[in-house]
Amino acid sequence: MDPDRRIIADGALLVRGDRIVEVGKAHALPARFPHEVVHRFPDHLIIPGLVDTHVHLAQALIRGCADDRALVEWLSDRVWVLQGHMTEDDGRASARLCIAEMLRSGTTTFLESMLAHRYGFDGIAEVVRDSGIRATLAKIVMDTPRYADASLPMHPGMVEDRETGLGGTLAMHRRWHGGADGRIRVWFGPRTPGAVTPDLYREIARLAAKHGLGITMHLAEVREDREFLRRAYGRLPVEFAEDVGLLGPHVVLVHMIWISDAEMRTLARTGTHVSHNPSSNTKLASGICPVPALLRAGVNVALGCDGGPSNNAYDVVREMKLAACLHKGVTGDPRVLPAEAVLEMATLSGARALGLEAEIGSLEPGKKADLAIFDLRRLHLTPSPNPVGTLVYAACGADVSDVMVDGRWVVRDSRLLTMSEEEVIRDARARAGALFGRAGIDAASPWPVH
Amino acid sequence: MDPDRRIIADGALLVRGDRIVEVGKAHALPARFPHEVVHRFPDHLIIPGLVDTHVHLAQALIRGCADDRALVEWLSDRVWVLQGHMTEDDGRASARLCIAEMLRSGTTTFLESMLAHRYGFDGIAEVVRDSGIRATLAKIVMDTPRYADASLPMHPGMVEDRETGLGGTLAMHRRWHGGADGRIRVWFGPRTPGAVTPDLYREIARLAAKHGLGITMHLAEVREDREFLRRAYGRLPVEFAEDVGLLGPHVVLVHMIWISDAEMRTLARTGTHVSHNPSSNTKLASGICPVPALLRAGVNVALGCDGGPSNNAYDVVREMKLAACLHKGVTGDPRVLPAEAVLEMATLSGARALGLEAEIGSLEPGKKADLAIFDLRRLHLTPSPNPVGTLVYAACGADVSDVMVDGRWVVRDSRLLTMSEEEVIRDARARAGALFGRAGIDAASPWPVH
Repeated sequence: MDPDRRIIADGALLVRGDRIVEVGKAHALPARFPHEVVHRFPDHLIIPGLVDTHVHLAQALIRGCADDRALVEWLSDRVWVLQGHMTEDDGRASARLCIAEMLRSGTTTFLESMLAHRYGFDGIAEVVRDSGIRATLAKIVMDTPRYADASLPMHPGMVEDRETGLGGTLAMHRRWHGGADGRIRVWFGPRTPGAVTPDLYREIARLAAKHGLGITMHLAEVREDREFLRRAYGRLPVEFAEDVGLLGPHVVLVHMIWISDAEMRTLARTGTHVSHNPSSNTKLASGICPVPALLRAGVNVALGCDGGPSNNAYDVVREMKLAACLHKGVTGDPRVLPAEAVLEMATLSGARALGLEAEIGSLEPGKKADLAIFDLRRLHLTPSPNPVGTLVYAACGADVSDVMVDGRWVVRDSRLLTMSEEEVIRDARARAGALFGRAGIDAASPWPVH
Repeated sequence: MDPDRRIIADGALLVRGDRIVEVGKAHALPARFPHEVVHRFPDHLIIPGLVDTHVHLAQALIRGCADDRALVEWLSDRVWVLQGHMTEDDGRASARLCIAEMLRSGTTTFLESMLAHRYGFDGIAEVVRDSGIRATLAKIVMDTPRYADASLPMHPGMVEDRETGLGGTLAMHRRWHGGADGRIRVWFGPRTPGAVTPDLYREIARLAAKHGLGITMHLAEVREDREFLRRAYGRLPVEFAEDVGLLGPHVVLVHMIWISDAEMRTLARTGTHVSHNPSSNTKLASGICPVPALLRAGVNVALGCDGGPSNNAYDVVREMKLAACLHKGVTGDPRVLPAEAVLEMATLSGARALGLEAEIGSLEPGKKADLAIFDLRRLHLTPSPNPVGTLVYAACGADVSDVMVDGRWVVRDSRLLTMSEEEVIRDARARAGALFGRAGIDAASPWPVH
């Protein structure tokens, strides 16, 4: 991934501080820079760090809590109840688990959606800082405690007031935006229509413009979202978003399944970004996002893994394969979303969505040194006539051997350097057990347990 | 997976020779059998070895040769050309690569489809024998060198005559069926209609019944298959199969996408099995097999990974997730194909398809000791409130730590015991490079290579 989409055989990167200084053939670079430290990766593949544009950090701790259920039960009987019982310590443990998993599978940047007050913004920002990952943390804003179709009440623990959302976001923006050497950014993460009034959306849009924040929001995820907006406001989802000031190059709309061609053109015209989450959309049977049509319309589409109960992994590599295959299967065209397009979605398109395309998303001099390195000496990656195809169709996150973020190694030889995996797992397990117990939720298989 | 679908916490298995003797709680077993060797797997999950019901061994060596292409070009410009240039040594190398990958990802039994004379049946059976895996090898039979729609000629190297197919299969059956302590079986693997005349199918059906062989065949994979059968014989795919004697409990039909409800009822009535290959079907845009409808009709549906150019991995664990998610996404029902149903497809349903349900596919006393063991001490498998959901939605083949086939360890601590992975990879790489060169095929990315 560079501006010319070159694949450099026997390539090398020169990194100085947090930046890539040079990209080229290996035989050329060491001669020119004889005093640098050389790390060799024989039979490896180096790509820009992957970008996950839709993450719920707090849902790692409730992974697998609600498989094979309809969305309404999934949310109201499981996800919201468990999230409503989480403490700040649980929030930190979940963030550590989630970020550790992302780094180990090559994700170097993510966009967290709807980070709630109750998970402890400061604690989670500290986890991001200490983990070494790059993150945009979108703080939740809402003012009515209901889900989109206005019939599904949230768990009381999930409800926040308008002022906590708006004022809290601006305070966190002042405290954390640009923190950790610029790795942390703070955005608005309003809930989907139904839980936020049009008036509050307009206020968010105004404040975002005034203070230079981005905005991310779930929209048109399920058919009912579309019906709700038509009934309540007489508008299609993208029309509603335009009405309340929620379109533009600083906005990432997530899922975007139930939209028309005209709405796609509006997204393209306004430069609004879409985060496509194929595992979540299929597992929850939300529908199929019209990604090929969005791309044809000129919309920037990036990838997201969503959360522990909806995916259930935070592995952008596996998400790439599903994106590449799913749309071929449903359109009947084996040429749509070729491997190269999907790799771009998972890297440079993600960077664009975050407004970071000048900083990350490709390997070129001047950009941040965010790298994911894959060990190709694996049975399932042999042979590899096209490294891009190998990555998208054959690899999984477990094939990542080394990861650099901001010029700093965070994974070496498949070991996370910034946390103890064993300790993260032990802590998450204990906390998940206690949390499920407190919430009175048994997510065991329908099969009898002996 | 046992007859009562029990999940045994702190469970244990007693294995003696090639059989499971006892299944129960760990605290009970060691006391009763104090003189046995005890292997401990703390925080691991033990399931029956996975069964892949549609494999092309020879396609591992041409993995990634034809991504993002329409089926006709995929076959005639790439897959058939490369396969037509393979030698017996290439066939053996490809089988070693493929089987090593399967074992490392928990697959203990597979059904090879259309094993061609040119890949060297004996050599491949020897690889199966030495690898420790359990296999049913279906030898190719054909008598017209064309693909289903009768317009697409095969590469000359791929063509076999009728006698090589029929006589060769019976000879291999005599030589290998029941070999390697019963791990090897031999079936008929006729090509799909268009490459086989009705008369030859009837002869295959007669010989299969006479000598007790099973049959596996691709059918109704693409819409054109259905149109060809209607045009050429005035029959729907399953009607045609019934006419020529190709239905019954000894038959595994593969793909089965373009079929009607009436045809599903015929499959159920005759006890014919279906091998569902979701990665291949989506990546090649063949269509979506109506799996929920097949299951409702009472058809036994198993899983298959297909081949290196169509998937591109031989990883049944990842295939389970795609099966579970895909059908939810396209039906709009998040309850179809729950994790438990998909695990059954990948184990006991596969065993049933192979006529081996008395021997493998579940963990119960008297069955063969074929085990796949997953290490749950992984970030992406934490927490695990339901081990079946964890396996289907969060795991991948790389999480398999130990594998036993026929009472013999073949993988321990993520290391293959029966082959050198390094040597398999080195050999496959060199042979693939030479093969692509001989065939004059460059499968590189459309991006420029420097």
